Amino acid sequence: MRETGRRELVRLGANESAFGPSPKAVAAMTAELPRLSWYGDPESLDLRDALAEKHGCAPSEIVVGAGIDDLMGLVVRAFVAPGEPALMVRGTYPTFLYHVVGYGGTAVYGSYRDDGRPDIEELAAIARRAVPRVVYFANPDNPSGDFVSRDEMQRFYDALPHDSLLLLDEAYADFVDDSDLLPPVFEDRLIRLRTFSKAYGMAGARIGYALSTESNIRTFGKIRLQYGINRNAQIGALAALQDDAFTEYVVAETARAREAYYGLARELGAPCIESRTNFVCVGMESAQRATRVMDELLLRGVWVRKPGAPPLDSYIRVSAGTEPMRGAFAQALRAVLASPRTSLS
Amino acid sequence: MRETGRRELVRLGANESAFGPSPKAVAAMTAELPRLSWYGDPESLDLRDALAEKHGCAPSEIVVGAGIDDLMGLVVRAFVAPGEPALMVRGTYPTFLYHVVGYGGTAVYGSYRDDGRPDIEELAAIARRAVPRVVYFANPDNPSGDFVSRDEMQRFYDALPHDSLLLLDEAYADFVDDSDLLPPVFEDRLIRLRTFSKAYGMAGARIGYALSTESNIRTFGKIRLQYGINRNAQIGALAALQDDAFTEYVVAETARAREAYYGLARELGAPCIESRTNFVCVGMESAQRATRVMDELLLRGVWVRKPGAPPLDSYIRVSAGTEPMRGAFAQALRAVLASPRTSLS
Repeated sequence: MRETGRRELVRLGANESAFGPSPKAVAAMTAELPRLSWYGDPESLDLRDALAEKHGCAPSEIVVGAGIDDLMGLVVRAFVAPGEPALMVRGTYPTFLYHVVGYGGTAVYGSYRDDGRPDIEELAAIARRAVPRVVYFANPDNPSGDFVSRDEMQRFYDALPHDSLLLLDEAYADFVDDSDLLPPVFEDRLIRLRTFSKAYGMAGARIGYALSTESNIRTFGKIRLQYGINRNAQIGALAALQDDAFTEYVVAETARAREAYYGLARELGAPCIESRTNFVCVGMESAQRATRVMDELLLRGVWVRKPGAPPLDSYIRVSAGTEPMRGAFAQALRAVLASPRTSLS
Repeated sequence: MRETGRRELVRLGANESAFGPSPKAVAAMTAELPRLSWYGDPESLDLRDALAEKHGCAPSEIVVGAGIDDLMGLVVRAFVAPGEPALMVRGTYPTFLYHVVGYGGTAVYGSYRDDGRPDIEELAAIARRAVPRVVYFANPDNPSGDFVSRDEMQRFYDALPHDSLLLLDEAYADFVDDSDLLPPVFEDRLIRLRTFSKAYGMAGARIGYALSTESNIRTFGKIRLQYGINRNAQIGALAALQDDAFTEYVVAETARAREAYYGLARELGAPCIESRTNFVCVGMESAQRATRVMDELLLRGVWVRKPGAPPLDSYIRVSAGTEPMRGAFAQALRAVLASPRTSLS
């Protein structure tokens, strides 16, 4: 916003929830703001109790962190020693790579297929060859939006070497039915990451959690910031968890937004990658044109982003908006694509 | 609170502000809670602009972190390689040591003098011998409350080896007049840490900052969590910074609380360490008796803590409270010390 000088943007660039946090979470946080002078509970006991009930596990199998980015740092620090390999799809959500580089690990890469889906067979084959300490996989994936089904995921996990740990980033899993997800298994070689940033609409709060074995969770307890979580984030997350009706509304509206983007893409003759997240990638033929379209949209007050690495770099990525936001995006994209400089062939 | 089963405690154990956050900060945060679905500004631009004005430096000389604990982790990670020495007073605020151990550094210790003050001459002598990568010093100190004057601090800094970096933890510096603090120097071998947790009453928000050279700040920028700060904490901190009248009120009330504790200690024949912070250490003759007094106070609903390492382990540490809280503490302490089991000799 500083860069464009605009005061109001249609924010569809960061996969934030356009539907906001639960009003019940807002009410709970508002009531507690005068006590923000108190530290939060270093053990997040109340929140972990509620999460344990949600996931059918013990509180000792959960650690709360300041968002998934924070938790990924703990995983890399605990499990990837300097020089050791860590595997991921090149171009996926970048924070895991950021930590691998930052902690001196050696990045090993799989790739996206030409259709924009992560090549999970290739990833498993590389894992068997390179035996990385950690395999990072986002399911659903960001930035593609693609989802690997439960059975495929189970086969992938089973195909990994037994010395490799699967770090499953499930930031967008709340948009997927539980029955489509890998069942709740608690094994030392599996760590699942969840967040309140997406379906729960609390990206600004910085709160997420990891599910794994008590042994792994104890390891994180030895290196994490003991007072790292905002007290109000703990309170809001607990209230958000208890507001099922609101979460269901967000998930339904998000599905509606995806359908609206698919329809718009069809109308404009642009390809889409089917998404199970709160965003959709729309194809712009080339990376250069995708960048130009993104820039032109920004000049019209609509902020979207685009993946940086091929083959997804020829797409723009638009987050699920409310109906007025979707309308503003559709209008702006139609105008941009009608201009000779940025029209699709 | 879970451990005692009580629902309400007089919280005087964690050096939180009993005077809460600024009402203007609460109002600003309340207004923005519905937008907690947005990520905060990864660069904290508005806040850094305001902090730069406060400290007469450039925004590029400031990095914002999720509290001082977070920033100390960055310093250790950036400057203390595995096996390298890092120096601190044994028994001072423990998070620096936590990070040194966590990142594989070698802890080297100075000590407190018998009167409870950090032995700063000894610390400088050890630094000249051991040439630690980082010397951690809290001024004012926690848990003693002691303050090293501007001139002494300058001599200490000048006496350190040129290959040692001074990490000056100024969490409690807002309770001290600026004219008593080390002047604002920006050199690669000096990093100062500040927080919104104490005088600004926002411990639960997790927000603090480091002041140093642009070069050091750039280094932190390569390893810090880019989206690590709660959006509402950024907004509240900015509003709190602008509410000078409230901060002055908190600082004045805190001084009043210290005087009240000194008076109570005199009445009870207990020694005190003079404090420039929002807490006071009151001597209980022995570590065993201090623990017993602390436990007895808790049974009476008053939560204080005690330092763990000698010679300070014979003190209880009580945070500055409001007048009713001070009254509750005085009443409870009088009762505890009147009991034969816990009376002072």
